[in-house]
Formats: sequence, C-alpha cells, structure tokens
Amino acid sequence: MHRSVVLSVDAMGGDHGPAIVVEGIEILSDAFRNGGLKVLLHGDEALLKPLLKQHPKAARICELRHTATSVTMSDKPSQAIRKARGSSMWNAIDAVKSGDAHACVSAGNTGALMVLSKILLHMAPNAHRPAIAACWPTMRGVAVVLDVGANVECTATQLVEFAIMGGAFFSANQNVDSPIVGLLNIGTEEMKGNQAVRDADAILRKVKLDLNYTGFVEGDGISKGVVDVVVTDGFTGNIAIKTAEGTAKLAATFLRESLESSLISKIGALLSMGAFRKLRAKMDPRKFNGGVFLGLGGLVVKSHGGTDGLGFSNALKVALNLARSDYAEHVAGNLKKLAEANTQSKLESVSK
Amino acid sequence: MHRSVVLSVDAMGGDHGPAIVVEGIEILSDAFRNGGLKVLLHGDEALLKPLLKQHPKAARICELRHTATSVTMSDKPSQAIRKARGSSMWNAIDAVKSGDAHACVSAGNTGALMVLSKILLHMAPNAHRPAIAACWPTMRGVAVVLDVGANVECTATQLVEFAIMGGAFFSANQNVDSPIVGLLNIGTEEMKGNQAVRDADAILRKVKLDLNYTGFVEGDGISKGVVDVVVTDGFTGNIAIKTAEGTAKLAATFLRESLESSLISKIGALLSMGAFRKLRAKMDPRKFNGGVFLGLGGLVVKSHGGTDGLGFSNALKVALNLARSDYAEHVAGNLKKLAEANTQSKLESVSK
Repeated sequence: MHRSVVLSVDAMGGDHGPAIVVEGIEILSDAFRNGGLKVLLHGDEALLKPLLKQHPKAARICELRHTATSVTMSDKPSQAIRKARGSSMWNAIDAVKSGDAHACVSAGNTGALMVLSKILLHMAPNAHRPAIAACWPTMRGVAVVLDVGANVECTATQLVEFAIMGGAFFSANQNVDSPIVGLLNIGTEEMKGNQAVRDADAILRKVKLDLNYTGFVEGDGISKGVVDVVVTDGFTGNIAIKTAEGTAKLAATFLRESLESSLISKIGALLSMGAFRKLRAKMDPRKFNGGVFLGLGGLVVKSHGGTDGLGFSNALKVALNLARSDYAEHVAGNLKKLAEANTQSKLESVSK
Repeated sequence: MHRSVVLSVDAMGGDHGPAIVVEGIEILSDAFRNGGLKVLLHGDEALLKPLLKQHPKAARICELRHTATSVTMSDKPSQAIRKARGSSMWNAIDAVKSGDAHACVSAGNTGALMVLSKILLHMAPNAHRPAIAACWPTMRGVAVVLDVGANVECTATQLVEFAIMGGAFFSANQNVDSPIVGLLNIGTEEMKGNQAVRDADAILRKVKLDLNYTGFVEGDGISKGVVDVVVTDGFTGNIAIKTAEGTAKLAATFLRESLESSLISKIGALLSMGAFRKLRAKMDPRKFNGGVFLGLGGLVVKSHGGTDGLGFSNALKVALNLARSDYAEHVAGNLKKLAEANTQSKLESVSK
C-alpha cells in the first residue's frame, strides 16, 4: 500500500505557463485513479480556474492556492529573491517547508528555484551542497547523472555525498535496490583523475556506507549503462550532459540529411517511419524530464522549462516516486555514517 | 609551391602492427604523386621489407630504418622509458629531434609516446604543458578540441597556451585563416565557470594575440560547430569526447534496433542503405584520426591504435599539413606575446 502524497506545484513557471502544468496533472491523475494523490496548485486563479474546468480529473485532485505574482524565466536569482515572497514559486516551496506537501515541482527558472529552495528548505542534516540530478538514456535503460550544474567545484566529501543522494534517488525513482554507483573519471585505474575524484574513490571504498560503489566510469560508460548512477562535479556533469545532447542532435541531423539525399532512400525512410517513431520515443527528452535538487531539507523537482504536458507529468511522477519512497531516511542514514567517519578520521589524524 | 616534407613513422605501434602503417603510407603516396614527400620508416626490417614489396608506391618514398625492439601497447609509460632507447618509437621521435624529419607519426601507446616525446623534444619555447588535440565532427564540418587528456588540471595561462596552439593547428590542418576559438564552459555569461576558465577568458580578451577568440562555448555548442577550436582542460575534454563517442554509439544502436523491429522497416532500411552508408562515412572515426601533441619542441601525431590503413593515412595527412604550414612560427609568435604580457602584468602588480 503506497502512502498518500501531496505535491506542491508552481503553476506559473516554464516557457508555456499554466496550461502545460494543468495538462501534466491531468495526465498523472489519469494514471493514479485510485486516489492517494493531492496537488496544491500555486498561481493566478484567473488563469487557473478556466484550465481546471477544462481538465476535470486534474480539478478533482487540485487545491488552488492563489498568488498574485510570479518569478519570470528571465529573472536573475538576485532579482528573483527580491520579488520572490508571495510568488507562486516561493509559496510552492514554502508548502514543503510547512509540511503541507511532500515535494515541490516547478518548471520555472532553475537559478531562482535553487536559490529560493536553499533559503526556505536549508540543507539536509550532514549535507553540505545541493546537487542537480538528471536522468540519461542508456543501452540498459536509464542512468542518473549528478551534479549537472549546481556546483562548479566539489571536494571529495561533497562527491561522496552526491553518490549517496544519487544512489537513493535512483532506488526511489526506478524502484531498484542497491543501484550501481560510479565516479566519472578519465580512466578506470586508481591513479587516474584529479585529487578530488581520487580522494572520493578512497572514501567510498573505506567508509562502510549502504551503497553499491563500483569505482571509476569513463565518459563513454554513461551511455553504455555500465553504472546506474554517475557521480561528478557540476562543471564536468553539465558539460557531459550538454555534449551528449549536442551529439544526439548532430546524429539526428546527419541521419535526416542522408535520408533526404536521394529518392530511393526517401521511400525507404517512409517505410521505416514506424522504426523512426520508436527511435524518437526511446530518446524522447520528455521521458527523462525532472532534474531533482538533492541534498536540501525537502524535495524539489525541476521540470524542463520548455516541456509540454506529458513532460511535466513525468516531472510530477519523479516527485511522487521520491515522496512515496524512503529516499529521505536512506540519505539521512548514509550521510550520518559519512559524517561520523569524517569526524573519526580527523580525530585519528589529530592523535597521530 | 609546397615545401618538401620528411615524416618519421613508427611502424611497430598500434593494434594491427606494420601492415596498416605501410598501407597508410601507400594510400597517402597515391594522393601525393608529385613528390615532395619522404618517409623514414622505423621498425623490424624482417617484417617491413616484404610489406614494402607488396606496396611499391610506399616503397618508393620510404627509407627503412631497422630497429630490433619496440614499445608495446600494454607497456606503462614507466616501463616504456626503461626499454625505449633504440625502439621504433624512440627512433621515430629522435629523427624529429635530430632534424632528419619534420614530424613523427605513431599508432603506439599514447602514454609512452607522450612521455618519450617530452623527454626527447622538450617543450616549445614559452609553452608550459603539452596538450592532446582531437578532431570532432560538427554541423559545420570539423572542430578541434584540446586538451583531451594530457593535463588533468590546468591554470588559466595553460588554457590560453592551448588556445594559441589549437588555433594554429586548426589553421594548418583545415587551411583556414583565423579560426574561431572558444573556451568550454557551463554557460556563456562572464561570471560562469571555475576560476581558471574565467581568468583565461580575461587574459584572452586583454592580451593582443593573433587569435580570433570569441568567448565561452557550452557542451552542446561543440557539435553545433559554433567555434572551430574548443579549449578546455584534459579532464573535461577527455570526458566530453568520450561522452560524445558513447552517445553516438547509443544512437546508432537504438537506430539499428528500431529498424530491425519489423519486416516493413527492415525493407525500408534496405532501400535506405545508400543513405546509411553516407551517414556512416560522415561520422567515420577514421576521418577524424590523428590526435596531435601540441606544445612540444617538435611535431608528434598520434594515430588511434585500432585504426586501419585509411585511418593511418589520415594521421599521416595531419602530420604533413602541420609540417608544410607555418604552425610552429605562428605558435612561437603568440606564445612570446603571452609570456611578455604575463611578465608585464607581474611587473605591474609588483609596482603597485
């Protein structure tokens, strides 16, 4: 029996506004007809009421919470802070803080959402920096990569914390026990990589965590699916994920150009239409929507700003999976073990 | 009128040994029938003589230089150093040092080739670290990415040196004047990224170099071809290039699986065969073969170890393009300007 979940949703974020948000809730509610799901919908009621009328299933599970202002996609984090109080984004996060909801979902401005989440929810106990985790299609299904942009530089301990959070997130979202966790590096031998990566590897091998750590993974190992969770700093992770996006687009463009280069291959492409549709579905970015902010004192899921209703429903699904799981307890337990081990080793080095 | 060029080739490197090396020389000599190219071929004459008999065009331009030993693909750099003297790899590099050849080409062990090249050729004047540059297919043709693995961590000055070397290499290899150079970063705004990247950006904007620097480029910008030269540290560059390789393989696998999933799409795929052949040719890794070691006191081109004759001929072509160009003079001029600017700014900061 699943526990019942309340999601707090910022209806005003994203490039396409409340319409895709309400549509996303409608899609999700369709899949969860047996109840146990409630949504607090934060935003302009003048816009939201007519949308809820058009989406009766969404309306049934939504509780409308009017806000007069919202953070825009072009606001810088510093601007967002000034005008944030009482905005749909602020209130959506605040409902998690107050305990009204289990998780917050927003398609709004990433920088603003991160800053406001940190202000309102603070860090989880024993966590030092939040990380953004993203899902990535692989030969074996899906992998989680983190951090993909919150932290430009990371210490070894922070990388280990990301390993803990990423492992728990993968478990919760994919319903897999003890997923395989690896550290992204430029080789798989022990002496490879920078100091932070080598030290993180040593800590992960030494400290007895509830974690299935396997060692280093190289860039081409991500898409191969050699691990479930790929841990890296936010600089490398951001460049890896954007490089992969760019390469996938390049391959698609080259494929299209090649198929359009002769009449016979155009006919072949028509016959293979179904196959191309399957291919597109497999790589569909909407399926991988939902960048999760890990390490905070509450759950916040960031939907891609340019997504549609289906994509937004996937971000909601991620939040639901996290809220229903023992993600928070799992992370808290492991982070405590890590903090104790760090204290211990400091005491040891002092006594030497 | 091109200047005549002597290439010094390690015939014993690579997974497939001397056969692909001699075949590569044959292919290249076919394309350069008008003379002006000579090859010093270092390796075991018992193996090479029969191969040269089978490849008369290669034989015409090759001068065989017998060596009894060679560095193997599995040797660690430290082992390679011990047994290196008199090996085909050592002698191939040494011919550049002695002035017998303009550039060295080897498909051997990357780590060993880098260590021996540094020992024999030292750094170029005013260059601090060597970088490995790789070619990358893009929407607009080809880009050069460096460093892809020689330096795990880089200072701002080292990144600027890589920008200088990468720009000159692109000019020489693609025959393009003032290629566009960018720094790989997680955003295009000035305040994005780590300290080294931000400082390198500031130096590139301030110091008057003979270089067409455009600013930051993101991961997805590489395949888009927004710049010709992508500058980054060896950790990020290695992960970016391997992530791209992995993604391209994933896309190819998904495409094949989709096409094989029904009879009608299989027929479609048969009709589109020519298009798929074009696609494969466009992304053919052999076309992009030739990782160049930049920053040394001589030219060394590393061919992929697993390549074939065509791939090796492309590595030879890269060495030929570099040797024929004013690459060395261009780099020397810019590195001198950079060193003078650095001295100047240190004097300024002292006098403050």
